[in-house]
Amino acid sequence: MNWIIVLVGFMSINLSVCLKELEYSTPRSCKELKQRFDFNTDGLYYLSTASGVVYQTYCDMTTAGGGWTLVASVHENNMYGKCTTGDRWSSQQGGSPNVPEGDGSWSNTVTFGTAEAATSDDFKNPGYYDITAEDVAVWHVPNNKRVDHWKVKSFLRYHTETKFLNSYRGNLYNLFKLLPVKFGVGTCPTNHGPSVPLVYDLGDATSNHNLYGPNIRAQTQSGFITFRAINTEGAAMAICSGVKPTGCHNEHCCVGGGGHFPEASPRQCGDFTGFDWDGYGTGVGWSASKQVTEAAVLIFYR
Amino acid sequence: MNWIIVLVGFMSINLSVCLKELEYSTPRSCKELKQRFDFNTDGLYYLSTASGVVYQTYCDMTTAGGGWTLVASVHENNMYGKCTTGDRWSSQQGGSPNVPEGDGSWSNTVTFGTAEAATSDDFKNPGYYDITAEDVAVWHVPNNKRVDHWKVKSFLRYHTETKFLNSYRGNLYNLFKLLPVKFGVGTCPTNHGPSVPLVYDLGDATSNHNLYGPNIRAQTQSGFITFRAINTEGAAMAICSGVKPTGCHNEHCCVGGGGHFPEASPRQCGDFTGFDWDGYGTGVGWSASKQVTEAAVLIFYR
Amino acid sequence: MNWIIVLVGFMSINLSVCLKELEYSTPRSCKELKQRFDFNTDGLYYLSTASGVVYQTYCDMTTAGGGWTLVASVHENNMYGKCTTGDRWSSQQGGSPNVPEGDGSWSNTVTFGTAEAATSDDFKNPGYYDITAEDVAVWHVPNNKRVDHWKVKSFLRYHTETKFLNSYRGNLYNLFKLLPVKFGVGTCPTNHGPSVPLVYDLGDATSNHNLYGPNIRAQTQSGFITFRAINTEGAAMAICSGVKPTGCHNEHCCVGGGGHFPEASPRQCGDFTGFDWDGYGTGVGWSASKQVTEAAVLIFYR
Repeated sequence: MNWIIVLVGFMSINLSVCLKELEYSTPRSCKELKQRFDFNTDGLYYLSTASGVVYQTYCDMTTAGGGWTLVASVHENNMYGKCTTGDRWSSQQGGSPNVPEGDGSWSNTVTFGTAEAATSDDFKNPGYYDITAEDVAVWHVPNNKRVDHWKVKSFLRYHTETKFLNSYRGNLYNLFKLLPVKFGVGTCPTNHGPSVPLVYDLGDATSNHNLYGPNIRAQTQSGFITFRAINTEGAAMAICSGVKPTGCHNEHCCVGGGGHFPEASPRQCGDFTGFDWDGYGTGVGWSASKQVTEAAVLIFYR
Repeated sequence: MNWIIVLVGFMSINLSVCLKELEYSTPRSCKELKQRFDFNTDGLYYLSTASGVVYQTYCDMTTAGGGWTLVASVHENNMYGKCTTGDRWSSQQGGSPNVPEGDGSWSNTVTFGTAEAATSDDFKNPGYYDITAEDVAVWHVPNNKRVDHWKVKSFLRYHTETKFLNSYRGNLYNLFKLLPVKFGVGTCPTNHGPSVPLVYDLGDATSNHNLYGPNIRAQTQSGFITFRAINTEGAAMAICSGVKPTGCHNEHCCVGGGGHFPEASPRQCGDFTGFDWDGYGTGVGWSASKQVTEAAVLIFYR
Repeated sequence: MNWIIVLVGFMSINLSVCLKELEYSTPRSCKELKQRFDFNTDGLYYLSTASGVVYQTYCDMTTAGGGWTLVASVHENNMYGKCTTGDRWSSQQGGSPNVPEGDGSWSNTVTFGTAEAATSDDFKNPGYYDITAEDVAVWHVPNNKRVDHWKVKSFLRYHTETKFLNSYRGNLYNLFKLLPVKFGVGTCPTNHGPSVPLVYDLGDATSNHNLYGPNIRAQTQSGFITFRAINTEGAAMAICSGVKPTGCHNEHCCVGGGGHFPEASPRQCGDFTGFDWDGYGTGVGWSASKQVTEAAVLIFYR
């Protein structure tokens, strides 16, 4: 980040006047970037955290007023790998009661991946824990798409408008500190986290619901995003994209999770949990469709 | 988009005039760096992609006119680990028909490693997919050498001069999109990719050939670099360094590959495939020499 | 080399005067940062290596005169995972005589992690091999603490004052080149590396000793940091934090190590070796306390 060098340079040669101005001049979110400079183009921008970490991420500057910051992507690198290398949003340790929280990525400051590879690998940037936000947006983008094709190739995009994050300390990092993604912390349905109603920007509640298998459709209501769901066996999942559970077999429609899923362990363990329960991408029984199984889940803040 | 920060930074100190000039000032390759600023020293430089990702890599500014950009290194971290953690150019998933493309690194935008550690770990920078090039150069450098010793410690260096990349959309990322490194996409020898003649900068066709076992030497012709070779069982490999297959047991002289190698699976799976088929570094039968087994393969563009 | 870009940027706006100042303005360590600019605040700063790699890390600017640079952290992500993914300071290859040096992180230039996540993941920055130092400091900080809470949440902090690194080429990278962390390089106690006396900044020799199990306390003397210890079976460990071995069961009080630990292999293999020999965090027999088992070991240079 050569410009950082310049900034550091100025700072350390006591041109503190530049530094002060610079403090005003490094945006911490795409929302701030839009508000202050009125950028209207979707694409990659540089942001900085409160502690001075500079990183590049994608800003959606056009949807519903724009100012959406990409902070994470959940990508299934191997549906057949059950909590193996690359399952950074669940566990890379094989699935075991000894690692109830798995890798713990939902509530720690570990970062990984890059914005340009967000549909080819798991991605988590410092904005995930640094930005104070009110709402989230989610995109489902087929794997291995280039940044400038994400929006046009996506098949589902939605956002919340309830400012629900105000009740959870302003971001998912803090939400998941309050509601741990950890085996054994609660029961279904008593201890599910919030289900927030959605506004669809591409697709609708029906097309969203049809991404999942018929059996789990019968146990969910579409048009909501749910955080920290629990399943029958007490396993915890981070995000149920587009649905609100009415039953407890949530491993077939929720992504991310703790490190232990007791039922047929480790068959439900992985970034996309039990999406392949009745076959890979079959869309039959409990299995999700090929379309949603082979797409990354991009998570934005505003 | 890194211009945003520059814009911001400079606007805040009222030097917005420089923005335009700055746009001219970030080179995308070592070739451009050399052409515009006539640098003649091998070493680490900063480059920027079209999307504004700034990264540091090694430039060979002296060989055959210079301007060579290091974009990747293939390093075998554990010859005994068959598609285990660290096999980023093949598969970290153990080797299975379920992951025919393995980690997919040859044709995605995932990056890893650093230039300074390119002989101690796998390395892939944004130049791999961002730079438009015509030729490639390859160095074989013993593992764990420091940057300033790479050239003197290397035992084999060569480059192409045919501008073959013009026929494959300008880089290996695009070449491997056209010719997937994936189990089952073709047969041997029908579906091998291009074999390009070499100009040697250190070593020659004979010393190059002798790096591999006698059995595979009898099935290859030296003095070429081959891309996307197929073996008897239909497994795909990315690069055969210095040789053109005349037979089909290419897993003993090619590096990188898909995630599945049927013969004695997973014994041929890994960044250096079946280099140890007749023992580690023995140079006997099908086995490669210790020298090539314990050296990283550095890949340059120009 | 990053100055090239700066040069270009600034020359293009005719501010080449800044360039000269910039050359003076990139500190290579927190010590240099303190000496030249008299910073007195603990926190994150940017540093640059001789080769121009710019990175951010934590500086302790207050302890014993300040100027301490965080260069690494050893974090046990899964005490039950024996040389599995995340054991970057020992081996991610399962533990085997075939990988006697494990991942080799103690004596190569591979870097990983970030300063902000240094208590949630293994961390190694370019300062580890780039900085020329005389002494080390170590902090034990409970896992998953935020940077601004490290000091207050830590339960043990100490440093050396003997300038012992002058005898080992100025840093741990070079020390471990001289004294490899590799199975089979020596015997216990003949081939232990240096044991350096400590000055405690938080805690004392007794509280330090009590972090480990009673059996190993009986075989160690507290108040020293020991580098490259060997155990009964010839396995090598990198750092024994706060103790000097008088016996040979050092896998119960030393962190980091080679890739092979013969006794009950791979039960002693991992970033925190055999800390759980008599149960996880029990503090009974050979087992370490829960407090030290669930804390990252932060390593500083000065």
